[in-house]
Amino acid sequence: MPSIKDVAELAGVGVGTVSRVINNHPTVKLETREKVNAAIKQLNYIPNEVARNFKMQKSTMVALLLPSIWHPFFSELAYYIEDELDREGYKLMLCNSGGRPDKELYYFDMLNQNKVAGIIGITYNDIEDSVSTDIPIISIDRHFGKKITCVTSDNYNGGRIALRELVNAGTKKAAYLATYSNAYSEVELRKKGFIDEAEAQGIKYMIYEELDTVFDDDRYFENFFQRKEHQDVDGIFANTDLLAAKYIDKAKQYGLRVPEDVKVIGYDGIQDNKLFHPILSTIRQPVEKMARTSVKLLIRKIEGETLDQEIFRIPVVYREGETT
Amino acid sequence: MPSIKDVAELAGVGVGTVSRVINNHPTVKLETREKVNAAIKQLNYIPNEVARNFKMQKSTMVALLLPSIWHPFFSELAYYIEDELDREGYKLMLCNSGGRPDKELYYFDMLNQNKVAGIIGITYNDIEDSVSTDIPIISIDRHFGKKITCVTSDNYNGGRIALRELVNAGTKKAAYLATYSNAYSEVELRKKGFIDEAEAQGIKYMIYEELDTVFDDDRYFENFFQRKEHQDVDGIFANTDLLAAKYIDKAKQYGLRVPEDVKVIGYDGIQDNKLFHPILSTIRQPVEKMARTSVKLLIRKIEGETLDQEIFRIPVVYREGETT
Repeated sequence: MPSIKDVAELAGVGVGTVSRVINNHPTVKLETREKVNAAIKQLNYIPNEVARNFKMQKSTMVALLLPSIWHPFFSELAYYIEDELDREGYKLMLCNSGGRPDKELYYFDMLNQNKVAGIIGITYNDIEDSVSTDIPIISIDRHFGKKITCVTSDNYNGGRIALRELVNAGTKKAAYLATYSNAYSEVELRKKGFIDEAEAQGIKYMIYEELDTVFDDDRYFENFFQRKEHQDVDGIFANTDLLAAKYIDKAKQYGLRVPEDVKVIGYDGIQDNKLFHPILSTIRQPVEKMARTSVKLLIRKIEGETLDQEIFRIPVVYREGETT
Repeated sequence: MPSIKDVAELAGVGVGTVSRVINNHPTVKLETREKVNAAIKQLNYIPNEVARNFKMQKSTMVALLLPSIWHPFFSELAYYIEDELDREGYKLMLCNSGGRPDKELYYFDMLNQNKVAGIIGITYNDIEDSVSTDIPIISIDRHFGKKITCVTSDNYNGGRIALRELVNAGTKKAAYLATYSNAYSEVELRKKGFIDEAEAQGIKYMIYEELDTVFDDDRYFENFFQRKEHQDVDGIFANTDLLAAKYIDKAKQYGLRVPEDVKVIGYDGIQDNKLFHPILSTIRQPVEKMARTSVKLLIRKIEGETLDQEIFRIPVVYREGETT
């Protein structure tokens, strides 16, 4: 019994093209259509309806891997990714990987089996060895090897802008606050931008970061406030909004007022209304643009295009709140 | 060429059973297995691998329809639904319907075509005519006909508890604040509980609700504050946390302090940390339990079970914040 693959081979086209011909897809060239139809006739190929349905389903499903949808940054991102996929006729499969490599690998396996057309993922595991080259995967924030395209906010400039705005608000000594995971991520560049701008401006600064699995919040901030070099810090750049909000909460317990004693800038822009306080001054991630760009690039990869760029960095803006 | 359907007919079982036999699913009885294998042999049926994959995919995909994943209540719900589906070996397809009936109907169509095994949905459109009976659909909050199972928080008791807690906090006259859509929803019962408890306690109250499409926030609150019966209101039960937060924001502009002049209770429990203020006093929806219950009921429906109950109401609790 001839398969769709046999037809594709005989016609000298991809399986996707045969599928499009069978389904009367309008974009197939007349010449290609004739070649495929000739192959179908020669092999006496009968398109199996279930197989056809499956093929159609395969080509319209994109998996989104996130640590957790229950986080305002990720849910906003997922919102726009679904919206853009919908415009393009694709469906979204959602996976909270929760940092579990086995769950992520399961979806990579689905991709290899053609059960999903592509993957958009925020992953912090070392999955590079598990993925083959030139596959339709877009990574957000995490920069892998050359073959996995990465979409990210302009973290480096975000760090520079944050330092500059702290100085504008009167900061004399700035601290960079972060937790980090073992996997290298573009997020690291927030620190680099912060340092480079501090050096360029001749501003005093300190770096405080801890592995995210080692400390709880209380210990994290206790250690920070006990450091000698912390004493004259009057400006904070926290590498996420959530960390900025936690700092502000803890600082109160140490008798520090924000923004009177310390200016604070976060990163993300997770607050989508002005009803809850403090409204954070923050480097706003261009979430909508990152989402739509990721989908557009993924579809180009699904369609077999080789992208000329490895990392796509989307500009960020500073949004002033009540904490500077 | 014999199809899986032919095998199922000859063996006198469903297509799903044939699929389970082919895939060595452990739950098939030996007797059934033998019948199916005999039919496969007699018809000389060759299971098509693509068809098999498709069948397997069909049975493990559940669609989640939400107005928007970019809302803390829905993203928490989606988080637990995905987690429970994952435990059961199912995958989640996500759709922001945005209140668009065409998008919702598309997924109902996928269900009819067996491309998804079931649907969990929060929908506010009149889709009842479009869905057949006894199909694997679970509705959250929205109560349809007898054949669509509904999972919801105990809205009625939530309304009663809210009124009681307002009175405990010193309220002499309470107002119920809401916006509503045209589709009937279980959410309406929050009002009924509020009224019944106010009557039972002999407390003065007023009801203020507007169609959600008619007014913007400014007009909505302007109209409320201008009402004569509003003058001596000193307790508010808003039917969502977001509405409660908006009220508090507007009340400030009218010189009203919360909780000194007015006590405020919301509904949902969307705040998952204590970093942003005001921390709302609220009726907390049992989101995790609602999510896991919905999945468990859906799977029972997918497996052909008829549920003996139409509406499943999960108990709520009062969570005190800074606004009472």
